[in-house]
Amino acid sequence: MTELKQFAENIIIKTKSLSLVTHLILKPMPKFSFLLLLLLFNLGNAQNTRNLWLQYDLVTDPVVLRTYKEQLNAVDIRSAALNKQVIQDELQTGILSMLGKHLSFTSSNAEVVIAKLKDLDANEKQQVSKTPKLESDGYIIKTIPKGSKDVILISGLSDNSLLYGTFHFLRLLQLHESLSDLDLVENPKLSIRILNHWDNLDRTVERGYAGFSIWDWHHLPGLIKKEYIEYARANASIGLNGTVLNNVNASAYILQDEYLDKVKALADVFRPYGIKVYLTARFSAPIEIGGLDTADPLSSEVQRWWKDKADEIYNLIPDFGGFLVKANSEGQPGPNNYGRSHVEGANMLADALAPHQGVVMWRAFVYSDEKPEDRAKQAYTEFIPFDGEFKDNVLLQVKNGPIDFQPREPFHPLFSGMQKTPLMMEFQITQEYLGGMSHLVFLPQLFEETLQSDTFIKGKNSTVSKVLVGDLSGQKVTGIAGVSNIGTARNWTGHPFAQANWFGFGRLAWNPDLSAKAIAEEWLKMTFSTDPDFVEPMSTLLLNSREAVVNYMTPLGLHHIMAEGHHQGPGPWVDGLAREDWTSVYYHKADSLGLGFDRTASGSDALSQYGTEIEKAYSKIETTPEKYLLWFHHVPWDYKLKNGHSLWYNLARHYQDGVLKVEDMISTWEQMQPYVDEYVFRQTQMLLNIQLKESKWWRDACLLYFQQFSNMEMPAFIPHAKHALDYYKSIQRPYAPGIKPSWD
Amino acid sequence: MTELKQFAENIIIKTKSLSLVTHLILKPMPKFSFLLLLLLFNLGNAQNTRNLWLQYDLVTDPVVLRTYKEQLNAVDIRSAALNKQVIQDELQTGILSMLGKHLSFTSSNAEVVIAKLKDLDANEKQQVSKTPKLESDGYIIKTIPKGSKDVILISGLSDNSLLYGTFHFLRLLQLHESLSDLDLVENPKLSIRILNHWDNLDRTVERGYAGFSIWDWHHLPGLIKKEYIEYARANASIGLNGTVLNNVNASAYILQDEYLDKVKALADVFRPYGIKVYLTARFSAPIEIGGLDTADPLSSEVQRWWKDKADEIYNLIPDFGGFLVKANSEGQPGPNNYGRSHVEGANMLADALAPHQGVVMWRAFVYSDEKPEDRAKQAYTEFIPFDGEFKDNVLLQVKNGPIDFQPREPFHPLFSGMQKTPLMMEFQITQEYLGGMSHLVFLPQLFEETLQSDTFIKGKNSTVSKVLVGDLSGQKVTGIAGVSNIGTARNWTGHPFAQANWFGFGRLAWNPDLSAKAIAEEWLKMTFSTDPDFVEPMSTLLLNSREAVVNYMTPLGLHHIMAEGHHQGPGPWVDGLAREDWTSVYYHKADSLGLGFDRTASGSDALSQYGTEIEKAYSKIETTPEKYLLWFHHVPWDYKLKNGHSLWYNLARHYQDGVLKVEDMISTWEQMQPYVDEYVFRQTQMLLNIQLKESKWWRDACLLYFQQFSNMEMPAFIPHAKHALDYYKSIQRPYAPGIKPSWD
Repeated sequence: MTELKQFAENIIIKTKSLSLVTHLILKPMPKFSFLLLLLLFNLGNAQNTRNLWLQYDLVTDPVVLRTYKEQLNAVDIRSAALNKQVIQDELQTGILSMLGKHLSFTSSNAEVVIAKLKDLDANEKQQVSKTPKLESDGYIIKTIPKGSKDVILISGLSDNSLLYGTFHFLRLLQLHESLSDLDLVENPKLSIRILNHWDNLDRTVERGYAGFSIWDWHHLPGLIKKEYIEYARANASIGLNGTVLNNVNASAYILQDEYLDKVKALADVFRPYGIKVYLTARFSAPIEIGGLDTADPLSSEVQRWWKDKADEIYNLIPDFGGFLVKANSEGQPGPNNYGRSHVEGANMLADALAPHQGVVMWRAFVYSDEKPEDRAKQAYTEFIPFDGEFKDNVLLQVKNGPIDFQPREPFHPLFSGMQKTPLMMEFQITQEYLGGMSHLVFLPQLFEETLQSDTFIKGKNSTVSKVLVGDLSGQKVTGIAGVSNIGTARNWTGHPFAQANWFGFGRLAWNPDLSAKAIAEEWLKMTFSTDPDFVEPMSTLLLNSREAVVNYMTPLGLHHIMAEGHHQGPGPWVDGLAREDWTSVYYHKADSLGLGFDRTASGSDALSQYGTEIEKAYSKIETTPEKYLLWFHHVPWDYKLKNGHSLWYNLARHYQDGVLKVEDMISTWEQMQPYVDEYVFRQTQMLLNIQLKESKWWRDACLLYFQQFSNMEMPAFIPHAKHALDYYKSIQRPYAPGIKPSWD
Repeated sequence: MTELKQFAENIIIKTKSLSLVTHLILKPMPKFSFLLLLLLFNLGNAQNTRNLWLQYDLVTDPVVLRTYKEQLNAVDIRSAALNKQVIQDELQTGILSMLGKHLSFTSSNAEVVIAKLKDLDANEKQQVSKTPKLESDGYIIKTIPKGSKDVILISGLSDNSLLYGTFHFLRLLQLHESLSDLDLVENPKLSIRILNHWDNLDRTVERGYAGFSIWDWHHLPGLIKKEYIEYARANASIGLNGTVLNNVNASAYILQDEYLDKVKALADVFRPYGIKVYLTARFSAPIEIGGLDTADPLSSEVQRWWKDKADEIYNLIPDFGGFLVKANSEGQPGPNNYGRSHVEGANMLADALAPHQGVVMWRAFVYSDEKPEDRAKQAYTEFIPFDGEFKDNVLLQVKNGPIDFQPREPFHPLFSGMQKTPLMMEFQITQEYLGGMSHLVFLPQLFEETLQSDTFIKGKNSTVSKVLVGDLSGQKVTGIAGVSNIGTARNWTGHPFAQANWFGFGRLAWNPDLSAKAIAEEWLKMTFSTDPDFVEPMSTLLLNSREAVVNYMTPLGLHHIMAEGHHQGPGPWVDGLAREDWTSVYYHKADSLGLGFDRTASGSDALSQYGTEIEKAYSKIETTPEKYLLWFHHVPWDYKLKNGHSLWYNLARHYQDGVLKVEDMISTWEQMQPYVDEYVFRQTQMLLNIQLKESKWWRDACLLYFQQFSNMEMPAFIPHAKHALDYYKSIQRPYAPGIKPSWD
């Protein structure tokens, strides 16, 4: 094996798919110097953005490289019937690409052993006997002595655990970490780690900004696209284990035989990567495709129809995950249509799935058509009475905040209130309210804020994360869902940095207590470069990016003041829609006195849903964290914030800070050209400039609008707006991505 | 310069965009043997399908390679201010990739001189003094003596002519042709060579099967995607010089200021590649975005609105091409809405564009809502009375046949009838009626059939091609349009072989008399391999593929018997739609007596529109070419065709032959694995299997349906259909690509 050959293979691998070409790259080659390899590699930073964070860049530090090469020659994969080939291909690809050498796969003299616990030999078993209890997907990576040398053991209970361990092992190399004296134990803290695709059968994607759906339903099951394999591999690499293929606003059509054959084809592709498929079930499917005249969950023919449908699905896909349901929300059908409750609806589906170990993920995103109650309160009001009544295989899927994926929301009060029901977190990875594809926003920062929020339900430090993983309630089924930001874009996500949000969601799904900072550093190193001159400033940039978007869109607890329909751009003036709680004025309540939604006892009293500790702290303006100020209070324009300046001044200050932060991001990025692919550099540069333009649009439109109410002068640090308010009001985006397409 | 460096660069170039990295690949490198280069290259056939036919594969024949390398060291690019960089990058990329060596760009001792005629020196001018007259885009490639050695001169009148000459020169190398004693003169036979994108502003594509629109309008003008450059380069390489960016069923919105800025951004990207942008103009735009209450072409305010709009566009885009218009057709607005004629409408727009040298391409695809006349006759009836009345800068854009892009149609009678009006050909590259993305159909075969059809208008051999290029009428403006099959698919067109149809259209647009066979061979060599063991069988496969689809869909002159709406799959039973001439039964007229549409004097008399020679020949069943039999005649089921068998027998025979041809294609393809990229191999294999399944679907559904009328036994060679007719009738495709998306 020569370096030159390795280099060539390295490049070839990056340009081709893994498994298809592995056999091609094993032919013998003449020998050349290693210098060459380095020289060639330094020609440019050619990230193939299709490969996401699995760039497997050549290790350029000669010491690290030599050490790794000495440590790794042969691997013994003993178990993993399901995905042995996937594990082997991934190791071969990764090691070849990072170290420029081929591994042997052999049972003798291997430095790495990959085997299920039950397949370890007596000595190995002895060495790991003190390992903490492993979950099904959990694994250990442990250096053990074997004869005269050290062996790295990757072990766990299931085939998938070995796959996860393998990806973790490769990640150590990507991060240039030491492979000596390893002693890692990893258990996923959540059992269902899943993407929700809001993908329609016609390939449009609701709130999708990365092009269109990667599911080419029309050509399935006959055409299996390379994308499907790449998708599964990427998810597996970060520990995701499920995917809901279709939109929560669902067509019943996907439950028809013809489509189930297509779903099965995808499930077959995904299985070796540990990814289960799930479907959104439209509650009225028994009528629409079943020919029944009701979908009443108490009707025995409806129950039988779902039971038969479940049997049919599991006959095709024995490891089918289950159903996601959006019922009686925003026009979707549900049990309420028949005078039945959410529990009756969810339990009926749960009964159909239970014999097959399937789950129902019932969305809590419900707000009534009729009740005039503060929308932030409604899901809590609706579901709390049912706490404890759901079947064991039902999870209630709750958005992170009580409104709808805003740049900042306090955590959803169901996380503290609903203590006898398994709750799943629903995050939105696609940036519906955070600038679509054009804005660089590192979402793990947002996710971390929610996950580390303290509910106080079992005293201090009762974080949402602990609720989710079941530490406080002991719930057995646990889960987390992320609304996908994946599409047909050549780099999967449109914005090159939106890949970080997919990655970050996956890492937090495995361990909700990971820090955003650690995730940022991992992602930057795996995707671009381990050079500290790149990682440090870029990590800072990522970690500041979420506060930037909050500032230039919805500072100080403002929320839901975006433009109507497409949700891109500011729209604080939005009023007079079919529902009051779809308007902006409903949420910001600007008037001559002040700004903000009084959710204390003197207002909607939504605050009371949070329990006494929080209620007590937040009931007064002066003890409410300023980041939630206008979420909970209607604050006078001249009210003095902690810095001694008025609300109006601070509002302007935050908007301006948001804009300035984007300018900082642009300056930082200009310095990063040496570390990134030329096109990624320019693409990001262009996108940051769009973001800057749009941050000013938000600032100018919102400040001009609110100034009408504050009647106060614009602070001097705010540049004169380019246009009058009417101009901003007149901006329309009828063809914005992610909304219902309109053919003329 | 060493081979190894060249090899590395070769691979790197293939994985990255051209111009962005050219500067990176010029660093010095140590020396290694050329053997290595070949060994490495033979590791696999790694076509990067993004590069289409510009693969620039390393020349593997050592003699050819050595000869080329000796012949090419330095190039002198003297002119081409507009696209000098593009020409230089393309040469550098192509030569580096094919020969593994760098060119110098210098004025001294160059073996290739690229210069406009006016920039040639006296000796060079003398050498080319006998060159036939060049058109603006035409060029010569000529070997001339210069001192003691030969020099290859690439010259023409315009910057773009040098670009076209350069691509031709590189193609010679791709085809492994000799570079000695070159004496080539190329003039494009048509002046407007244009793609029509049926792309909507929301990125859906009407009848688009390769994903969605590559125009990311929302992020323009801020985000310039690499795709735009690649698209322009691909088009330039085959001589296309224009693109209509938006659907013929147009939104007026694209003419608004905000969108014109986006259009300008694309025009700026395309300009160095010689591609002009055009827009579809919605006739009612003065109302929809202009605030007028009429779009009457005789209204002076309407005329002024269009004049102002044209001025505005040309102010942004000085070389804007002009407008395409679909008026008073399938619900689109037009002059008829105001009691005005097509001439009045077209000329009004022509007047607005004339000061800027813009053209109007007015579509002849018109069939009245009211007239009960045979639809095949209506465009002719509508437009013939206006012959000679259109302004000089109006072209009438006529589909190849009188119905609508069917697998086979006789040529459109306007090509013989409309002799005083410039006619443009409109071909459909996207396979609306030919299997969408799933079927391998080499369309240049279809295009050639139309182009070489004899109109007899100036005696024998008055081909449609001669009409188009103006040889028979002397028209000054000439053109050809192809409805694009390009989308967001990773390989641009979905089916890897659909790339050949884009390529073939471009080659025929340059020279409508090229043979389909020559085009097939060029494309196969440029895209995959020059190995005769690949090119010969695959060329046969391509050239047989169109007759296959005619046979399994619409043999013997049948037409328009596809499923409703999405046009995928058979639907001979389609009846009872809002318009009779949208149904299938209208076209096949099957009854107990026979099958086919009588278009002779005893029927609709559409035949009379073709002139006496054709009318005479086709008026009798026995002298009508069998391929058009049921287009012109209602033929008895038991009528004996030339082979002595009945119509019914022959119908079945053709359907079965179509299926068998697809089976042949599959067998041939199985042998091609050594020559093509592994994924392309598998992808094509999967698609061919879909095609086979669908060819059987067509055969079984159509024969079962027609058997109801023939009442004759199914010939023994037809396998028993898997399902009864009702099953085939029940098949629905509500989410098929290319149709209006439906959100549930």
